[in-house]
Amino acid sequence: MVEWGLFVGRFQPFHNGHLEVIRSVLRTYRPNELIIGIGSAQTSHTLRDPFTAGERFEMIVRALEFERLEHFWVVPIPDVDRHAIWVSHVASLLPPFEEVYSNDPLTRMLFQQAGYKVPELPFFNRGAFEGTEVRRRMAAHEEWRDLVPLSTRTVLDELGAEERIRLLAHRDTKSTGGTHGH
Amino acid sequence: MVEWGLFVGRFQPFHNGHLEVIRSVLRTYRPNELIIGIGSAQTSHTLRDPFTAGERFEMIVRALEFERLEHFWVVPIPDVDRHAIWVSHVASLLPPFEEVYSNDPLTRMLFQQAGYKVPELPFFNRGAFEGTEVRRRMAAHEEWRDLVPLSTRTVLDELGAEERIRLLAHRDTKSTGGTHGH
Amino acid sequence: MVEWGLFVGRFQPFHNGHLEVIRSVLRTYRPNELIIGIGSAQTSHTLRDPFTAGERFEMIVRALEFERLEHFWVVPIPDVDRHAIWVSHVASLLPPFEEVYSNDPLTRMLFQQAGYKVPELPFFNRGAFEGTEVRRRMAAHEEWRDLVPLSTRTVLDELGAEERIRLLAHRDTKSTGGTHGH
Amino acid sequence: MVEWGLFVGRFQPFHNGHLEVIRSVLRTYRPNELIIGIGSAQTSHTLRDPFTAGERFEMIVRALEFERLEHFWVVPIPDVDRHAIWVSHVASLLPPFEEVYSNDPLTRMLFQQAGYKVPELPFFNRGAFEGTEVRRRMAAHEEWRDLVPLSTRTVLDELGAEERIRLLAHRDTKSTGGTHGH
Amino acid sequence: MVEWGLFVGRFQPFHNGHLEVIRSVLRTYRPNELIIGIGSAQTSHTLRDPFTAGERFEMIVRALEFERLEHFWVVPIPDVDRHAIWVSHVASLLPPFEEVYSNDPLTRMLFQQAGYKVPELPFFNRGAFEGTEVRRRMAAHEEWRDLVPLSTRTVLDELGAEERIRLLAHRDTKSTGGTHGH
Amino acid sequence: MVEWGLFVGRFQPFHNGHLEVIRSVLRTYRPNELIIGIGSAQTSHTLRDPFTAGERFEMIVRALEFERLEHFWVVPIPDVDRHAIWVSHVASLLPPFEEVYSNDPLTRMLFQQAGYKVPELPFFNRGAFEGTEVRRRMAAHEEWRDLVPLSTRTVLDELGAEERIRLLAHRDTKSTGGTHGH
Repeated sequence: MVEWGLFVGRFQPFHNGHLEVIRSVLRTYRPNELIIGIGSAQTSHTLRDPFTAGERFEMIVRALEFERLEHFWVVPIPDVDRHAIWVSHVASLLPPFEEVYSNDPLTRMLFQQAGYKVPELPFFNRGAFEGTEVRRRMAAHEEWRDLVPLSTRTVLDELGAEERIRLLAHRDTKSTGGTHGH
Repeated sequence: MVEWGLFVGRFQPFHNGHLEVIRSVLRTYRPNELIIGIGSAQTSHTLRDPFTAGERFEMIVRALEFERLEHFWVVPIPDVDRHAIWVSHVASLLPPFEEVYSNDPLTRMLFQQAGYKVPELPFFNRGAFEGTEVRRRMAAHEEWRDLVPLSTRTVLDELGAEERIRLLAHRDTKSTGGTHGH
Repeated sequence: MVEWGLFVGRFQPFHNGHLEVIRSVLRTYRPNELIIGIGSAQTSHTLRDPFTAGERFEMIVRALEFERLEHFWVVPIPDVDRHAIWVSHVASLLPPFEEVYSNDPLTRMLFQQAGYKVPELPFFNRGAFEGTEVRRRMAAHEEWRDLVPLSTRTVLDELGAEERIRLLAHRDTKSTGGTHGH
Repeated sequence: MVEWGLFVGRFQPFHNGHLEVIRSVLRTYRPNELIIGIGSAQTSHTLRDPFTAGERFEMIVRALEFERLEHFWVVPIPDVDRHAIWVSHVASLLPPFEEVYSNDPLTRMLFQQAGYKVPELPFFNRGAFEGTEVRRRMAAHEEWRDLVPLSTRTVLDELGAEERIRLLAHRDTKSTGGTHGH
Repeated sequence: MVEWGLFVGRFQPFHNGHLEVIRSVLRTYRPNELIIGIGSAQTSHTLRDPFTAGERFEMIVRALEFERLEHFWVVPIPDVDRHAIWVSHVASLLPPFEEVYSNDPLTRMLFQQAGYKVPELPFFNRGAFEGTEVRRRMAAHEEWRDLVPLSTRTVLDELGAEERIRLLAHRDTKSTGGTHGH
Repeated sequence: MVEWGLFVGRFQPFHNGHLEVIRSVLRTYRPNELIIGIGSAQTSHTLRDPFTAGERFEMIVRALEFERLEHFWVVPIPDVDRHAIWVSHVASLLPPFEEVYSNDPLTRMLFQQAGYKVPELPFFNRGAFEGTEVRRRMAAHEEWRDLVPLSTRTVLDELGAEERIRLLAHRDTKSTGGTHGH
């Protein structure tokens, strides 16, 4: 039996695909404690990564508490910008996890090379596209609410997510980049 | 009523003083969710900070689950090495907390200057000394087990804490410092 | 009355649009002291950011002293690569400014969220394009001198700006990227 | 004749010794423009470096404007933590300075090795001690006001400098170090 | 006569073009000791930079020892992300080299501005394209082995280079970028 | 048989103790290739770490070439300031070494925990003291030359080592610390 398991995602934003994978992981692999690692925790206010780690933290807790899930932990994980030491960095921040759940091929490869168990996930490939799709719809004034849990809609509305993403999308179009000043 | 409260400590290691403050905070200020921030998360393997954030994470979860406490979250918080932006850094990583609990005068001053509520804690001044005392006793081959919760003793023994701290203490005496090589 | 005001730009290079906005800010908002923050101060020798902060510093001082402007300060501001703490970073480096002048939508949003006054600027949108246009013309051997103040032309010529930008443009075309080696 | 000269200090806080050296530099070496570099700009809220770069910036401007000095520039310079590249770092942030004024032996050695003119200063050795003395007196409830210019006293009082330094001194005595948590 | 010469490349992977340039440098400029600097040493596991510095180190040593070359040194050089201080950074890590050999226009410009001798190389422009071509062929299941020395083929096969590059190429296509999580 | 072995030190400066350990390692453990890792490579111009990585690099090469040793490699290794990921950092920079030779207890513990062979060294404890002693004697105007190889004396004299160390020792006494400015 697995004591600690780790699920890694960026959650920009948390969406129904994430929720289904988490439910499925809990049902299939049954870790006693599930750590939900928020990747790229230092990044926010870009079109690809609009929300802070803290904002994503709140989305996850609200959604999983609504589902009455228990024994999960949410941990922001800043990037180290060096793939070769990333696993070691993650391991130093977390309790001694044994299994890693992720759909990202690089994340899977790095943990496998370091000797971790990285079981197959259902809904493979779904996560990445669904997050991109939510952001695209927000920017394009299309309907996005059916892609995220009810509680996430509330958090996103309170954050003014639509306005933020449109401003960032507009800025990207003018290609003034990710830094300050003009 | 406070939705999210933040308790910040270094937990090198988690000890009875921490446990009493957490119990008291939950009883007195009654935050719905209590975030336990592990300060200086990037530091380990020094005499002052012997344990990794992950090792401290495990100590805290084991101790608080043994106490059947609920609605607490454990979050490693790396230093930014610039006190003037530390509060902003913490705020970006965590859900929107309203109250901060800490015995450290600088931590209190920085959060107060940024407009957070920082209520008084009981057992003021106790935390800092108790952690130092546990490490001192371990290094000196004295009895330290009565200073930490039962579950922490188990984690510390599994980690080989005594041996690690004695090696680090020995190294410090020879003043070869915190860097590698000789 | 505003004691300290902050104008943020990248100034790659300083051009007539910058000069007009600064004149207009001084006339309209009348800060006692105007800080001119050089954004992305750490970046240079790329096609988008060809000049060092020090080279941009000299362009600004030469241009504004030629105009006999006074009570302005020039301050290089390195990026922190985390938008969520950028305002806090800027505030720690500068005297207690009250108003921020910028055309960049993200810069405006971040300062507004942090509670600063961010009044509307005239010539909105002009800054970003004019800098890009100067660099494009230099790379394409077209006439760029009418886009920048007289004193900036002198500084750019002394720096060998045309040659530098053409080399960087050539390098980008071969997509060998922003790092060293081949 | 020197176009740009550079005076480097930490200014924790700005005091009469700094003012006298700056007056003397202007009289003796007569640079057209004097850059006043605030060293260790990223550091604040420690006993040795209590004030942010921005707070020090304000002290310097207030004092020198009171003296009706002109053609000086104030620039925060963050450390790079590598002495061997520090001169190169400073040079990239500033206009092309030719002379460096400093009482710090290492600063002098590094600039000399890099080929800069580093003329002798009057009041040698005074700067370092006077800053330490101001902080010591503040911590010890002794009279410190005669050591700093009149305008600096006002800034320090507005900042609550005495209270801040006493809190930091108290914290240091308990040796809980420079990081957060307890 | 040149005592120490420096050849800078990224070596992703080491290929026949590198080998020919090194042979030619040794024959033409005859440095007593040749330092082979591995640029962007911190980067790996991306499509453009698939191999760690250590993996590239091994490729170079194997190839040059097979050629019975002597008096060469292999040194990983991490980026500093600031072109303006890069030369100073390299100089602090290496013995006092006098000549720099590189095909990269920016590398050449930066060392020339700092006063180093940067002689012309034969096979100009070849290096950059050959590395890109090896990676492209690997990703496209085309034959790449004739582009690299025999010993490099062995190292690449032992590393599972084809599989790694295909995984990274696949990931890039889905544009999930260079960070972790999905 | 060991293909790659790693010997880690700080070499401030290279001394007779280092030379004896290297000779003994080559004789006893017989690695085919010996990597000599220069620890704390980023540090220089402090009393404890007076020499740049490049200066130490030259000392090592001169001494070992004088001894006609072969198949050794010298590699500067910057600190990562996080002991928990240091081994992973070193491994990413170097060919796949199997054995580690070091007298530093922490270095030994970290590599052992990561599964490396770390055999016992002769002259245990000697290295650390001899480096400190050379620096102490230089600062105190005592005779230090018998503690280092002949070739190292030459390098140290060319660097003006005595003068540098005395300046740094004098600066430390005045406790103006490791940062710039006064």
